[in-house]
Amino acid sequence: MDIAPSPLAQPFPAIPPVAGVTLRIARARYKQWDRCDLTYVELAPGTTVAGVFTRNVCCSTEVEMGREQVLLGSARALVVNAGNSNAFTGFRGREAVEQIMAQVAQHLECKPSDVFVSSTGVIGVPLPLDKAEAGVAAALNAVPCSWEDAANTIGTTDTFAKGAVATAVIGDRTVTLAGIIKGSGMIAPDMATMLGYIFTDAAVDPAFLQSALSAASDTSFNCITVDSDTSTSDTVLAFATGEAGNMPIASFDDTGADAFAAALFDICRQLSHLVVRDGEGAQKFIEIEVTGADSDESARRIGLAIANSPLVKTAIAGEDANWGRVVMAVGKAGEPADRDKLAIRFADKWVAQAGLAVDSYDEAPVAEHLKGQDISVGVDLGLGDGKAKVWTCDLTHGYISINADYRS
Amino acid sequence: MDIAPSPLAQPFPAIPPVAGVTLRIARARYKQWDRCDLTYVELAPGTTVAGVFTRNVCCSTEVEMGREQVLLGSARALVVNAGNSNAFTGFRGREAVEQIMAQVAQHLECKPSDVFVSSTGVIGVPLPLDKAEAGVAAALNAVPCSWEDAANTIGTTDTFAKGAVATAVIGDRTVTLAGIIKGSGMIAPDMATMLGYIFTDAAVDPAFLQSALSAASDTSFNCITVDSDTSTSDTVLAFATGEAGNMPIASFDDTGADAFAAALFDICRQLSHLVVRDGEGAQKFIEIEVTGADSDESARRIGLAIANSPLVKTAIAGEDANWGRVVMAVGKAGEPADRDKLAIRFADKWVAQAGLAVDSYDEAPVAEHLKGQDISVGVDLGLGDGKAKVWTCDLTHGYISINADYRS
Repeated sequence: MDIAPSPLAQPFPAIPPVAGVTLRIARARYKQWDRCDLTYVELAPGTTVAGVFTRNVCCSTEVEMGREQVLLGSARALVVNAGNSNAFTGFRGREAVEQIMAQVAQHLECKPSDVFVSSTGVIGVPLPLDKAEAGVAAALNAVPCSWEDAANTIGTTDTFAKGAVATAVIGDRTVTLAGIIKGSGMIAPDMATMLGYIFTDAAVDPAFLQSALSAASDTSFNCITVDSDTSTSDTVLAFATGEAGNMPIASFDDTGADAFAAALFDICRQLSHLVVRDGEGAQKFIEIEVTGADSDESARRIGLAIANSPLVKTAIAGEDANWGRVVMAVGKAGEPADRDKLAIRFADKWVAQAGLAVDSYDEAPVAEHLKGQDISVGVDLGLGDGKAKVWTCDLTHGYISINADYRS
Repeated sequence: MDIAPSPLAQPFPAIPPVAGVTLRIARARYKQWDRCDLTYVELAPGTTVAGVFTRNVCCSTEVEMGREQVLLGSARALVVNAGNSNAFTGFRGREAVEQIMAQVAQHLECKPSDVFVSSTGVIGVPLPLDKAEAGVAAALNAVPCSWEDAANTIGTTDTFAKGAVATAVIGDRTVTLAGIIKGSGMIAPDMATMLGYIFTDAAVDPAFLQSALSAASDTSFNCITVDSDTSTSDTVLAFATGEAGNMPIASFDDTGADAFAAALFDICRQLSHLVVRDGEGAQKFIEIEVTGADSDESARRIGLAIANSPLVKTAIAGEDANWGRVVMAVGKAGEPADRDKLAIRFADKWVAQAGLAVDSYDEAPVAEHLKGQDISVGVDLGLGDGKAKVWTCDLTHGYISINADYRS
């Protein structure tokens, strides 16, 4: 099956090298394909790490081990396998991950726990030990590659390479943050997995890096949805090599901490939006802003209920200003809401207020807005100060084609 | 837009008259269509009533009022409007419902609170007072009609008329339960609404009727899903005229109580399955059985997570034995689960056990099962005794066509 690039695709940005980060790729041939499918990232000694992982309780071995590894706070390498998620493979899957960790650790003369492994692709098939071993050996000796090459290599059925860059000033140093991500394109019987990696030359204490990454994820990766399904392998890792030579950041009181956290959020937001823009079958990028909710968390849940509603998503695909479906989605969220205080807008045009259609409702400008690629939906609950933004794409025939028409 | 009958449609059953229940239909012309769209059911004096309603907090006026009316326990009439849901219409919508209640109450010389009103169709447009008044007037004077006529008249974009019948022996009397239901076909910008009505000639105390209906709903109407969206108007009402002359049932200690509750559950199950069989775009009817869960409620939530997963539904549409997606859906349910104890089957063929694919897995019989119209998926958690069955349909291009391709 050949999938055309998403109409919402964006060009790969110019990302400079990040000191202490070397990218290499190789062919492990996890699937019958002629492309690189193993990414190896070498990180300078002293690199710190933080991570956020899927909440799916049927998570992969890679996720289980990654959760433990980030607690140790140090990293020397990352290996990403594409074409096989190694999820739901029991002890056999664990053996494969441990083999990769040992192989890289021997090469770098580091602890196996400093080697992070992710895998994405078919579920239920243990990662073949021989292919993994040969692939890692080839990658260790490959010439360094570009960010775009690495972004392409971690992808599976992504329709475009996804990367982002940001900078922050810390004291007298300008640090760079570079990120690549894959996700949301898939072919049955593979499973969509979001894998994101952020690299910075900043010196950052791992505990601070973790708290900054968790906070940034809450309003970026945790506020996007394509189809409400949660992968068994979702992972975002942030690595800080310290090569920029800034005074290490260990708390929000430290110089440049706010700037670094802002840059980290910026790159998380960029990367998360790119995943939505490559959502299966996506024709429109949708931002849903919820205000006036009981709390920020309540606003986020209401936003996700709207973003996950097949009826809302198909209405927007059909360029139909069907605000009744937004009302329905607010009501089913299970969060505090008062029907008679609810207001709904498309772009900046309020279509319903105080629980009923606005008297002077003119559908023409709303219909015009819905013809575009970037759609804005606003909901005001009229209850409190809680607010959130979530992002999703529309639900089209393309989603069905990708996920149902092809058979394994 | 013209929608072909669901391939899962079933013929309308032979339903006998129920003593104390008279059905009439009329043209209120809520939409530009040439069909009856107002159903009026007259109920004998002494009829008791119970109801279950949507949990959507943005519910319609009809639902709000219905909730209060069932607490009073008595009913004389039911009016169902098709083509306009009257939801999210504020005080104007309430005015329309009160007008209908008053008009019927005057005709029957009963209390307005004995007149139940439901509406289904477009959201956000107040039910027009003049059309409602003329429609009710016509219906009051219409000749009685059949169950099938009434089932067709409460429908909106349903592709077939849905009804069911059951009987129970109470002491020396055999009582009849008859039910009609609409739901799950829809055209933008209308909103799918499940409206179900059950009529019996049994004499049943309203409190017992309510507890029996609530219990039956928990494992029927509350265990079906088409697309995870919850209508603002969902309503199931049960009316008992008492004309069969049995000793009234007031508790499970009374003669025939178990038989009546079993028949009520039987009819609820039949009606709920018919809604799934008319699910938008449905090509396959799917039963998901969850066993070995921490509790029955946990099993139900896991079953619904599977049933609502777009990836599971598209895999089944594609006749793809993609059990990895079932694993994913179990894991995202947020319920107790242990990946390494999980077992999954299609029909009676276990495809995964103890957290990985079965060694001797032969896909051929599973692939054969998936080609059929009735699909059975089983999940055993291996944790406890909790169990549940839920029912859904597959997710196909038909769903997108119905909900996105047509514009208002």
